[in-house]
Amino acid sequence: MSAPGADGGIAWPTDLAAAAAALRAAGRVAVVGHVNPEPDCIGSTVGATLVLRRAGLEAQTFNADPVPEALRFLPGAGEVVRAQALPDALDAVLVVDSSDPERVGGLLARRPRDVRVINVDHHRTNTRFGDVNWVEPEMSSAAEMVWHLAGALGVRPTPDIAANLLAGIMGDTGSFRFSNATPSALRAAATLVEAGARPDRLADGLYGGRRPQEIGLLAEVLGTMALVAGGAVAWIEMTQAALARAGLGLDDTEGFIDYPRSVRGVEVAVAFREAGPASTRVSFRSGGRVDVAALAGCFGGGGHRMAAGCTLALPLAEARARVLAAAEAAARTVTDDR
Amino acid sequence: MSAPGADGGIAWPTDLAAAAAALRAAGRVAVVGHVNPEPDCIGSTVGATLVLRRAGLEAQTFNADPVPEALRFLPGAGEVVRAQALPDALDAVLVVDSSDPERVGGLLARRPRDVRVINVDHHRTNTRFGDVNWVEPEMSSAAEMVWHLAGALGVRPTPDIAANLLAGIMGDTGSFRFSNATPSALRAAATLVEAGARPDRLADGLYGGRRPQEIGLLAEVLGTMALVAGGAVAWIEMTQAALARAGLGLDDTEGFIDYPRSVRGVEVAVAFREAGPASTRVSFRSGGRVDVAALAGCFGGGGHRMAAGCTLALPLAEARARVLAAAEAAARTVTDDR
Repeated sequence: MSAPGADGGIAWPTDLAAAAAALRAAGRVAVVGHVNPEPDCIGSTVGATLVLRRAGLEAQTFNADPVPEALRFLPGAGEVVRAQALPDALDAVLVVDSSDPERVGGLLARRPRDVRVINVDHHRTNTRFGDVNWVEPEMSSAAEMVWHLAGALGVRPTPDIAANLLAGIMGDTGSFRFSNATPSALRAAATLVEAGARPDRLADGLYGGRRPQEIGLLAEVLGTMALVAGGAVAWIEMTQAALARAGLGLDDTEGFIDYPRSVRGVEVAVAFREAGPASTRVSFRSGGRVDVAALAGCFGGGGHRMAAGCTLALPLAEARARVLAAAEAAARTVTDDR
Repeated sequence: MSAPGADGGIAWPTDLAAAAAALRAAGRVAVVGHVNPEPDCIGSTVGATLVLRRAGLEAQTFNADPVPEALRFLPGAGEVVRAQALPDALDAVLVVDSSDPERVGGLLARRPRDVRVINVDHHRTNTRFGDVNWVEPEMSSAAEMVWHLAGALGVRPTPDIAANLLAGIMGDTGSFRFSNATPSALRAAATLVEAGARPDRLADGLYGGRRPQEIGLLAEVLGTMALVAGGAVAWIEMTQAALARAGLGLDDTEGFIDYPRSVRGVEVAVAFREAGPASTRVSFRSGGRVDVAALAGCFGGGGHRMAAGCTLALPLAEARARVLAAAEAAARTVTDDR
């Protein structure tokens, strides 16, 4: 389906039917996700590949980065091809969950003239870089969009498709704990469980499987937690020494900020990660009333209202002092009236 | 609806229609949940009370225990009456989420002759103690049953009803991470979100709102984690000294066992809690292959295949040595073939 643009000019084919039609017209499709893939990226791209194969197409998933070890339990995830470029013999590239061409690494840099790019994404910031663009910011996840795509292509999810798509929905909705746990996401999940997805096994895969040293590092980092601004700001820090003791990297500490964030009365949670002798990565989470993207912006960073970050070219202790002063000031603007 | 018993004898009115009819015939209803109420108990009983009021009945929630502080955010939870006995002027008692009369404390001990007891529960072990029994072990939660009850009574959930019922479903399904996250639970959740329940706010209430000292205690307890049996058994321990330092009680450590349980390769997770100088409470979680109810049974305890517990009349260190020997043996029965 095409609709006239807001300016009455160019008609963009923007929706699901157009994406499905473009795929049906193709024979060989590369399905591409973004760098640093998380559960929704792997679930939606691998799920889409399996859907396209059921629809009679040749399809293969490509990613510039490897599938994280924690996601290799997803059926078909082992077949994802890590590549710096796409093969020549293609009719279409289905780009999923990627707001712009840079997000897919170099995979769209060099593409043959006759290959159509189909852009399926739920990010509000999507640049509509495809020949066909189906962009729905109201969707919980790219996986929910692929579930609709399967319906449009007449494909009933197999248990493997269902597992990938439910993993994506669970990943992006925090297992239905975020505000994007919409009625349609929950209904899609219901049909995926009917199709054979097992929420308990997916949760084990997504949230279990920790290494023992991750628990040790968590214990050490939680021990650093402190509150300032009368309890409105809670912070934790991760030093290179702690990471070295655990034999882990900064990426293994992704979810740690959820702990200070979960403390009652906390308006701003901050996690400091020592990236180098004069480099400190800072993550922020909001309790709902402080716009932490603005806070991160004070230090050249950015993000969303509820989650943001920045990197300071300062040693940990100095970065901490500066950022906490700003966080405290921001928190006081909302606690002064409570 | 009534159906003949399996023996062809007594006809039990066992289902939803019978429960709804019995409630419709009543004027004043006490809604009763079990002792040590968790989210499904509070959500389903408060939700049921609000449903009955919308259906034109006088209704009030009673519990032998107080509503836990962490659940007081639920709309209407502040109206739950803590009582040792029910008032006399009643037509019916709706008992929700309680497998037997003992589970409700003393609230069913003394009841007037003409009061009908309506038993709505999802526990397989329910003793069918009511005058009307609607027992459905396939239901995810008591809250899901109350959602069906609202439908049978022609009540559309208000936002307050929806919040209570979704809290119950989220509570009992681990926010849709357990095997009881069924298609029908997910569909009920979808309609509850449509009716105004906010999954993000409920998750904040259910999983947030920690006290800072809970994080400190978690850090200390996770620091005790150790693995035995080649990594197949992981354990943690909570001493009275650690609890005293944090100013917290044993009940504040409920979820801590999920951490050793989440470690890759762990078949049996064990949490030791020092209840007194010669009393140690032990909790077990299974990785799926060891029946921890049998393990707990070795020490006079019990539970389910995946989650069980026991109490030993021994000091912590002695209890730990004995239990770990048994846990190690149990884990080896499944790891020897891997």
